[in-house]
Amino acid sequence: MSKVHKVTFDDAGTVEVPTGTTLTEAARLAGITLNNPCGGQGRCGRCVVKIKEGNVRRRSTLRLSSQDIGEGYALACQSVIEDDAVIYVPPQEKVERRLVTDLTARKVEIPADYDYQTQQTIKRIKLTIPPPSLEDQTDDWSRLQRALLQETGIENIQISLSVLSQIGNILRDGDWEVTAIVEVPAEGAQAFPRLLALFPIHFPEEKPLWGVAVDIGTTTVTVWLTNLITGQVHAQAAEYNQQIHHGEDVISRIIYDSKEHNEGILQSMVLETINTLVDRACKQSKAKPDEIFKATVVGNSIMLHLLLNIPASSIRLTPFITAANHMPNITAGELKLNIHPEAGVHLLPCIASYVGADITAGAYSSGIATTDKTTLFMDVGTNGEMVLGSQDWLVTCACSAGPAFEGAGVIDGMRATKGAIEEVWINSETLEPNIRVIGGGKPQGLCGSGLISLLSELFLVGIVDKSGNINTTLDTPRVRTGTHEGEYVIAFAKETVHGKDIVITHVDIDNLLRAKAAIFAGYMVLAESVGVPLETVEQVLIGGSFGQYINVEKAIDIGLLPDMPWENFHFLGNTAVMGAYNALLSWQASQQIDEIAKKMTYIELSADNAFYEAFMSALFLPHTDLSLFPSVARQKAQEI
Amino acid sequence: MSKVHKVTFDDAGTVEVPTGTTLTEAARLAGITLNNPCGGQGRCGRCVVKIKEGNVRRRSTLRLSSQDIGEGYALACQSVIEDDAVIYVPPQEKVERRLVTDLTARKVEIPADYDYQTQQTIKRIKLTIPPPSLEDQTDDWSRLQRALLQETGIENIQISLSVLSQIGNILRDGDWEVTAIVEVPAEGAQAFPRLLALFPIHFPEEKPLWGVAVDIGTTTVTVWLTNLITGQVHAQAAEYNQQIHHGEDVISRIIYDSKEHNEGILQSMVLETINTLVDRACKQSKAKPDEIFKATVVGNSIMLHLLLNIPASSIRLTPFITAANHMPNITAGELKLNIHPEAGVHLLPCIASYVGADITAGAYSSGIATTDKTTLFMDVGTNGEMVLGSQDWLVTCACSAGPAFEGAGVIDGMRATKGAIEEVWINSETLEPNIRVIGGGKPQGLCGSGLISLLSELFLVGIVDKSGNINTTLDTPRVRTGTHEGEYVIAFAKETVHGKDIVITHVDIDNLLRAKAAIFAGYMVLAESVGVPLETVEQVLIGGSFGQYINVEKAIDIGLLPDMPWENFHFLGNTAVMGAYNALLSWQASQQIDEIAKKMTYIELSADNAFYEAFMSALFLPHTDLSLFPSVARQKAQEI
Repeated sequence: MSKVHKVTFDDAGTVEVPTGTTLTEAARLAGITLNNPCGGQGRCGRCVVKIKEGNVRRRSTLRLSSQDIGEGYALACQSVIEDDAVIYVPPQEKVERRLVTDLTARKVEIPADYDYQTQQTIKRIKLTIPPPSLEDQTDDWSRLQRALLQETGIENIQISLSVLSQIGNILRDGDWEVTAIVEVPAEGAQAFPRLLALFPIHFPEEKPLWGVAVDIGTTTVTVWLTNLITGQVHAQAAEYNQQIHHGEDVISRIIYDSKEHNEGILQSMVLETINTLVDRACKQSKAKPDEIFKATVVGNSIMLHLLLNIPASSIRLTPFITAANHMPNITAGELKLNIHPEAGVHLLPCIASYVGADITAGAYSSGIATTDKTTLFMDVGTNGEMVLGSQDWLVTCACSAGPAFEGAGVIDGMRATKGAIEEVWINSETLEPNIRVIGGGKPQGLCGSGLISLLSELFLVGIVDKSGNINTTLDTPRVRTGTHEGEYVIAFAKETVHGKDIVITHVDIDNLLRAKAAIFAGYMVLAESVGVPLETVEQVLIGGSFGQYINVEKAIDIGLLPDMPWENFHFLGNTAVMGAYNALLSWQASQQIDEIAKKMTYIELSADNAFYEAFMSALFLPHTDLSLFPSVARQKAQEI
Repeated sequence: MSKVHKVTFDDAGTVEVPTGTTLTEAARLAGITLNNPCGGQGRCGRCVVKIKEGNVRRRSTLRLSSQDIGEGYALACQSVIEDDAVIYVPPQEKVERRLVTDLTARKVEIPADYDYQTQQTIKRIKLTIPPPSLEDQTDDWSRLQRALLQETGIENIQISLSVLSQIGNILRDGDWEVTAIVEVPAEGAQAFPRLLALFPIHFPEEKPLWGVAVDIGTTTVTVWLTNLITGQVHAQAAEYNQQIHHGEDVISRIIYDSKEHNEGILQSMVLETINTLVDRACKQSKAKPDEIFKATVVGNSIMLHLLLNIPASSIRLTPFITAANHMPNITAGELKLNIHPEAGVHLLPCIASYVGADITAGAYSSGIATTDKTTLFMDVGTNGEMVLGSQDWLVTCACSAGPAFEGAGVIDGMRATKGAIEEVWINSETLEPNIRVIGGGKPQGLCGSGLISLLSELFLVGIVDKSGNINTTLDTPRVRTGTHEGEYVIAFAKETVHGKDIVITHVDIDNLLRAKAAIFAGYMVLAESVGVPLETVEQVLIGGSFGQYINVEKAIDIGLLPDMPWENFHFLGNTAVMGAYNALLSWQASQQIDEIAKKMTYIELSADNAFYEAFMSALFLPHTDLSLFPSVARQKAQEI
């Protein structure tokens, strides 16, 4: 009783197909190629389309949230036509990331309440000063202070030798019509106003007043060049931290830095990275580096120690002590940061050796400190730090996850650059993989999201068991016994850039399991420490590079993220630089970040037996306690 | 009726001489050679002796104060024996300076009320700190601050990057037993405490805590190395300011400094001078320069600008404006001053372009600001600055006297070093000079005190008239007409170091007259500005190099000092460095110096017609108005 139905695709016309045809097939007939990385197994969610009119039967909705379904989304490979229908096909390059809706770099929204006058500490002040005479021989600096006091009420202002040595000529060059750049302290702060610069000119009102927010990641450094008057971010620039040449992770950096003859090398490298980025951002915005009068900096504790060339060796050894969590304010000139030499460089506060200013900044910008929902905020970059709490309380910890998810410690691991396999789908029957490579072309290794994706697939199709062992008895050339025990070949030599097989080995899987177990144990211990069951967490906010390229469902599959509805996960991008940007604009934000740092209770995991137990329990796929991962249990049940 | 009298000289036995014999002759008979530079004319006062018993007739007491006479002093050449007598002859090398009683460098007296605990801003603090553990992971800097707060109550302490980068290792090297050096701000000051250094040791209590007071004179730089705990000055060192190579006076220095390519040269030179002196003082005291934790600096405004490398060009041009009278506090490291790099370098406040911190410091240390006597305080070094007032009011001015009294602008002028004629006596009959040369030996020029002495003698014996003209009709080879009009030969070629005549010319005398007229006009204008007649001034306090080598009476003779009883003049030595020393020890003294600077009213002479008139009237020897100089009038009357 097969009936023919009209299926209309926006922009591509109408086809007629019999009942029972899949939407994938109908689309093909209409000349549309849908994404199909999992080979039509309904596991990848990339062939999502929207049913505008008519009915289709959804055989599976595995990759769709309830909101998606409510809005009419369906997986084309799992949707069977039973009636006429009108289908919207989203642009395929966009749909690739649809399930991670807020992942891509967005235009930065200026805080709605931003007010330069009341929040910004950098002030640009026009002055018209009565010139000296034999009747009024007041010295230049006192005269300038008097004018500032009269114009703005600013008093007790401080000046550096370098600026003091310039003011005489500037006052006279400008014929006593000048512009002062002043940094005023936050209300209640233990500090004095400072004269940063004086110009022999009155600038047009619309000329930007520049500041820069800097996030020093272990891997990537990010700068946002910002007009402090409007709050607008005019340029964003990011680049690998040059320090990578001397170690991928913070521990190798500390070891390198503490060796004789290496003193100051890592500092120079990160400064060079920042200076390069500032130059690049300035060129994009027609700004000059020495027109930047303020910098806020976040990073983990080790990055901040290295930036200031402060020995970090006590961070590495028990009892894991930083030289300072709240670094003193310094000037760009002292630091040789290539912005205006008098610009204050404000490092946001750290909490502990392994919970840095990136986390305090992220805790602010993620909103965890102001929400009434019980929230888990995590930032898994090269290290794994997380915060659990709400407006009322905050606990934090750091797990020594290691850099496995950044591709280190894995035989064919690499960073997420061109040639990295970022996604893998394995046909459950043929056990053949379907891969997506960053930048297209031949692969040369696996990045973090590729590893998560691969591990999830290996587990779901039964190539590895819950202990991470590879089933070497399977009848496929992809599975074999290599030098590191069992291994799965993702790409054979002839398909790769370097002409060598790309594999994942049992040892690699062990490393990945340890990394994900450390992170999951972190959640567990934090939750236990305050007596809040993990399942009562209402939302998970994910910041940092980790969140930028993974799929939630894959991360849940392997037990890296807790199992909860996808709509409860929010990927916020770089929450660290966002927090630095907030602090750059507003002293109130800056003070709130300080408050967050004071309020957060740090849990030292290395001193905690509960952590060890939680870690051991999490060394399985997805976990020894499968009741913690009901969605994974359901999938495994479907597969079997 | 000539009678014979026994005259007994202490230590030299008794001689018998007839009535009418002079004491000089009696002494000669007893084998004693008395000083006799004026040739027995009763003008030099150098043959002073003390009559212990018996009577002598004093023919003249010209060089003796009423106190001297009351105590039994008499001039041997003017004392005629009329009875038996017992005579005390003071050691001749001491009597040379007897009339300038407090002239020689004295041991510095520690202020009687000095109390390290309550007055000193540098604190040395022993700390025993609980080490960190997994239970208390407080960062090093917070831990140190907490210990300081508990031990001393010091909070809000600041730290430089450089010190912060050291504390981790020091705390561990000292096994958490350390000594902190902290600078605490003065009470009510707009500043925060600073951690200057941390040592991994507990020092013995008696180990000195070093500070240094520095006076930067245009000609001479002086440092006093001081133990801040006891207040004791352990070493004094002085040396020519190396900047002399680029100009003797402040104006030439400003001109040199403002030329292209010269930037920073004068700063380096004075720093090198100070550093050399600090090294020398340290060697004497077994101290190390980097153990010096505080410096106070005085000098005229130009010297302080050059020290900080701040352009001084606006000081030279009307309306004569300094960049800053109160320089910001800086660290020795910023300045490249070779003491501990974190040591604060505190420049005392200036009043105006030509009334510097040397004067505010001198006003403090001289006591003018706390006395109830109407007092004139002057410091005539390379420049002439003076203050008139008392505890209730202070007015100040600077006269562009020029460096004539330092030997510049005079054909055979030189500084007061070996070979300089420092004193001249001219026989009123023969017109032959009797000279005293610094260091003995042949002369090579005239220094300031020599010039004053010479001018006074030339005037008193009638070689120059009151207008400064040389009487070239006199019958002596010493007076002749040279290339610069009339001149007097003090030493012929064969008697000199360089084989050339040493002369004073009419042009030289004109320069000296202008210099002394400027200074005297300064007194007059200051006195007029507050309506206080100059003759009501109760004491004259003289600081600086000027006061170290001149005779008051000679300076009065030429109209350089006002005519008042010698006992009203007090030579205080280097009041500038003494003020710096007071400020080094005590923040209360430092605040009082700031108060003095605020309180002093500056009179700008260049804008003042009264000054010009007073200057013109003072261009005579001693003055057009002879009633201002009654003692000189009396002498001239005696001579004639």
